[in-house]
Amino acid sequence: MDKLIEKIVRLQNPTALGLDTCIEYIPQQLKEKFGEECSTLESAANAIYKYNCLLIDALADIIPCVKVQVAYYEMYGSHGMESFHKTIVYAQAKGMYAIADIKRNDIGATAAAYANAYLGSTMLKDETLKVFNCDSVTINGYLGTDGIKPFTDLCKSLNKSAFILVKTSNPSSGELQDQTLSDGRKVFELMGDMVAQWGSEQIGSFGYSNIGAVVGATYPEQGEQLRNRLKSVFFLIPGYGAQGAGGKDLVGSFDKDGLGGIVNASRSILCAYKKYSLPAAESARAEAIAMKEDIVNSLKQAKKWDF
Amino acid sequence: MDKLIEKIVRLQNPTALGLDTCIEYIPQQLKEKFGEECSTLESAANAIYKYNCLLIDALADIIPCVKVQVAYYEMYGSHGMESFHKTIVYAQAKGMYAIADIKRNDIGATAAAYANAYLGSTMLKDETLKVFNCDSVTINGYLGTDGIKPFTDLCKSLNKSAFILVKTSNPSSGELQDQTLSDGRKVFELMGDMVAQWGSEQIGSFGYSNIGAVVGATYPEQGEQLRNRLKSVFFLIPGYGAQGAGGKDLVGSFDKDGLGGIVNASRSILCAYKKYSLPAAESARAEAIAMKEDIVNSLKQAKKWDF
Repeated sequence: MDKLIEKIVRLQNPTALGLDTCIEYIPQQLKEKFGEECSTLESAANAIYKYNCLLIDALADIIPCVKVQVAYYEMYGSHGMESFHKTIVYAQAKGMYAIADIKRNDIGATAAAYANAYLGSTMLKDETLKVFNCDSVTINGYLGTDGIKPFTDLCKSLNKSAFILVKTSNPSSGELQDQTLSDGRKVFELMGDMVAQWGSEQIGSFGYSNIGAVVGATYPEQGEQLRNRLKSVFFLIPGYGAQGAGGKDLVGSFDKDGLGGIVNASRSILCAYKKYSLPAAESARAEAIAMKEDIVNSLKQAKKWDF
Repeated sequence: MDKLIEKIVRLQNPTALGLDTCIEYIPQQLKEKFGEECSTLESAANAIYKYNCLLIDALADIIPCVKVQVAYYEMYGSHGMESFHKTIVYAQAKGMYAIADIKRNDIGATAAAYANAYLGSTMLKDETLKVFNCDSVTINGYLGTDGIKPFTDLCKSLNKSAFILVKTSNPSSGELQDQTLSDGRKVFELMGDMVAQWGSEQIGSFGYSNIGAVVGATYPEQGEQLRNRLKSVFFLIPGYGAQGAGGKDLVGSFDKDGLGGIVNASRSILCAYKKYSLPAAESARAEAIAMKEDIVNSLKQAKKWDF
């Protein structure tokens, strides 16, 4: 996690650009400029990649990280996966940390296949080849340790990271996650405790493990509670912007130094041109700066800003 | 779920061919025959598709269903996803029901993207296009109803099905799933009850809903308990063969008529040539017949065979 935190500190900005890009989000005049009619899966996937590049170019000097939501690429089949991969490569080339938001989960042997695909490498005839080669992934811990271990092992050996779903940002997340167990813990607290355990041997120089947690900004009380409970677990925090959370909802998820989490926003940046009377790149930049200021000011007001 | 059950009844065989195909499973002489050296991701993905076709040709008249584990295709990048798609198309063309084992999960808008990719269709400029167009998917319910609804809605409108993880087959599945809640239920029972609820408006002519559950064969007691608890929920049952479960472990997961579940085997069929001194296709057929007989005989001995 050190690599991500170093980028956050350097840019003084604990936010991630969420590339949940679908073709309806791309302004018509840009589709024309890209030469992509979006009438085939391949053309749509190309338009998405080109829009991602435009946003990355506009934001790489102020935002440390992209979170690429793979669902929006699988929608366009194998062409979409090609655009997903090219987006990861492009973001990394521009110095951004690349989180693949895949929420994968399976039994051990299959989890290893996913871990190899997104973090590690695939064995071919005479060599191993990196496939998507992301810096980080999101995963789902419903299957327990043996579905997680292939990811945590690769995080350790390759110095990468993973974020495990603990308390998700969606309205119905409590149906399972907020259930109380017989020992008094909530399900999300048990999951949080397992995440801390899974990452306990990979604590970096900022005091945070390579194995982080997804904790939705839309549940600020649980965020604060989990921050106090899981001292060494870094949070990936979705739900800002279009999902409804603002800077003040995030403060509890950060530690006393203003570290401990990275906040993702997707639609509010992807579609910022609808709010500002500016082209997409400038609009995205204006929205990204407003988001950074909102979060940083909220942290400063809470006396949680020391970098 | 009717479509799947009709195929099971017609072939008198409640089993699925698990296509968790990786290149190490393909005999060297077949790779040569296919003209695929497997030294690039594209060649490896092609070899996997050709091996899948060989197995489908050998088994489509005796096995009603394929379960294609997408992790083993993502390992080969966008080429792998192309082979995944072609495998689905080929199996369906041979009359097999095609389950995409994807275990996807996310917040509502993103779950809709996954549901469109694997069950529905993607909006392009002037039309919608089916992408992977599978008959069924597996999904993970950790996020609750709004992450599930895009899938259940498409199952209803398109007459497709989904299987939600309830009690998985892996050794550590109990770490979360077997936890006891304050109301006395186990987590997997709560999840099972939610699955029954999610599918309660889609009960077909055999009494089973389009919304099924994944229940591992490696936990026979829980399988029997869930069968008694979830009368209208059809089970996808992994864990047979290489994972250790045999016919007798499955009986409790079936209803009194021998319906209620479909048993998947992957490695034991994909690698059957290592056990039989026969070519891959004949070996797979011999193993598939042995598996069918083991399961059917176990059901008959338990007086659970009425079709």
